[in-house]
Amino acid sequence: MDSRSGRVVRRCRMPQFQKIAIIGVGLIGASIGLAVRKRRLAAEVVGIGRRTSSLRKAKNVGAVDRTTTKLASGVQDADLAIVCTPVGAIAEIVAQVAAAAPNCLITDAGSTKEQLVAEIESRADTVIRFVGSHPLAGAECSGPEHGQADLFKNRTVVVTPTSRTALSDKETITKFWKKLGAQIVELTPAKHDEALAATSHLPHLAAAAIAASTPERYLQLVATGWADTTRIAAGDADLWRQIFFANRSHVLAAMDTFEGHWKAFRLAIELGDGDKLTTLLTEAKRIRDALGN
Amino acid sequence: MDSRSGRVVRRCRMPQFQKIAIIGVGLIGASIGLAVRKRRLAAEVVGIGRRTSSLRKAKNVGAVDRTTTKLASGVQDADLAIVCTPVGAIAEIVAQVAAAAPNCLITDAGSTKEQLVAEIESRADTVIRFVGSHPLAGAECSGPEHGQADLFKNRTVVVTPTSRTALSDKETITKFWKKLGAQIVELTPAKHDEALAATSHLPHLAAAAIAASTPERYLQLVATGWADTTRIAAGDADLWRQIFFANRSHVLAAMDTFEGHWKAFRLAIELGDGDKLTTLLTEAKRIRDALGN
Repeated sequence: MDSRSGRVVRRCRMPQFQKIAIIGVGLIGASIGLAVRKRRLAAEVVGIGRRTSSLRKAKNVGAVDRTTTKLASGVQDADLAIVCTPVGAIAEIVAQVAAAAPNCLITDAGSTKEQLVAEIESRADTVIRFVGSHPLAGAECSGPEHGQADLFKNRTVVVTPTSRTALSDKETITKFWKKLGAQIVELTPAKHDEALAATSHLPHLAAAAIAASTPERYLQLVATGWADTTRIAAGDADLWRQIFFANRSHVLAAMDTFEGHWKAFRLAIELGDGDKLTTLLTEAKRIRDALGN
Repeated sequence: MDSRSGRVVRRCRMPQFQKIAIIGVGLIGASIGLAVRKRRLAAEVVGIGRRTSSLRKAKNVGAVDRTTTKLASGVQDADLAIVCTPVGAIAEIVAQVAAAAPNCLITDAGSTKEQLVAEIESRADTVIRFVGSHPLAGAECSGPEHGQADLFKNRTVVVTPTSRTALSDKETITKFWKKLGAQIVELTPAKHDEALAATSHLPHLAAAAIAASTPERYLQLVATGWADTTRIAAGDADLWRQIFFANRSHVLAAMDTFEGHWKAFRLAIELGDGDKLTTLLTEAKRIRDALGN
């Protein structure tokens, strides 16, 4: 209270977290660091990674206060750790964080959740305070030098608690992303993976198959349609291999669905069935138009 | 010659064409009109169409000098006619233009060429001065109100002469597009259609099949990947039905190629074959990266 006016004033707001550890300082990790520091949500942000070159870049762009290649000492006394590595590495790193900092709340930024969460929760030897997160944000560039403090503003972050998640932990993670400007959607890990198979993993496969189908001599004849449709095929092959394997059953189910529609298009073209083809194209357009540009 | 200085001066350059008729004043037709008028390539540009509302808009944005719904009188005395209607209507309109203005050089802006050129050249009753064109330019909007005078600048225009095309006619059409800022690629009608099946028609089908495969409740979970990959599925269903039917055999062959790659992706995911999946993703990325953003 301001003794003179009686109004509540916050002259020196305490940050929400004392120490946030970010493991993996690529585009997403660095953007989280920039967003946290810009909004003063933590007294200290530590960047943890294997490559000193990335860590140095993350420090230089102001995404972290300090860096280390040593996970255990880096996460010590952290109250929040965010694992921003490729999905294939997340479960093991979460376990290491929990072992080094048993009280630390942990989340991630991985593209798949069902297998990951099951693996983390199956470790009966320790109680791990983990709440899965997936920010639906990215950019065409990668690396900490392309980090953006507002990458999550007005973007959706899916949070995937389970029956074993403490309500307070879920709320802390939800509030954290909201402070970064994101809108929160809560889904079970399985529902998340089913949805993302349709909205992200399937488009990637189609984009890759189109690019692979294009004779290179015809690249001079592509226009914005090909460029847009194949853009995500430029994504990192290693990263995407991990995503497809981590979400295999849902990806295969999404491929089944796609193949059904594909065959209907093919049959209409083969038979010269104009009414059918118009119906199929109109239905696809209706769904695309529902999103807007 | 300037009598005082002896230098060649062009005080009042004659336009290249006396009268250009544009049949179909949608986005492409209106953009051609705007480009021609901006560059003063014709003494007069006449817009011809069925709908007076579109013609009025084309006139209002300055794409044409005057408009008419009457094809025969509209093209009379034109030295160049450009048919910018959906592909299904082009052959018949070209024949009507040739009947009304026998000396008029005719081109088009249609997305397919093999069937169209064969149909035009099969009309033994008249000699038709037709050279096919396909500007690889478009925009997400349609309608004359979205026309742009620089739509063709630095874009590719495919020109598809045949053994029956007079060299001078081919050169006139080539020069015309170059004056609009375009780069010219010359292909046979069949090669054009084979290439465009891969670079344009196949991506459209994949985009439409992805959109159709996406449960609408998941639209809140899409990010830029889905948005980019499906963008062209918002195209006009009628227009695209005509394209697929006019290029059926090449589209089906492109679908075969796509299905081969798709099955390889599927098999690698089913078998958990990481090396194979990485190879497939890397090859797709290589081709996409070759284009740039």
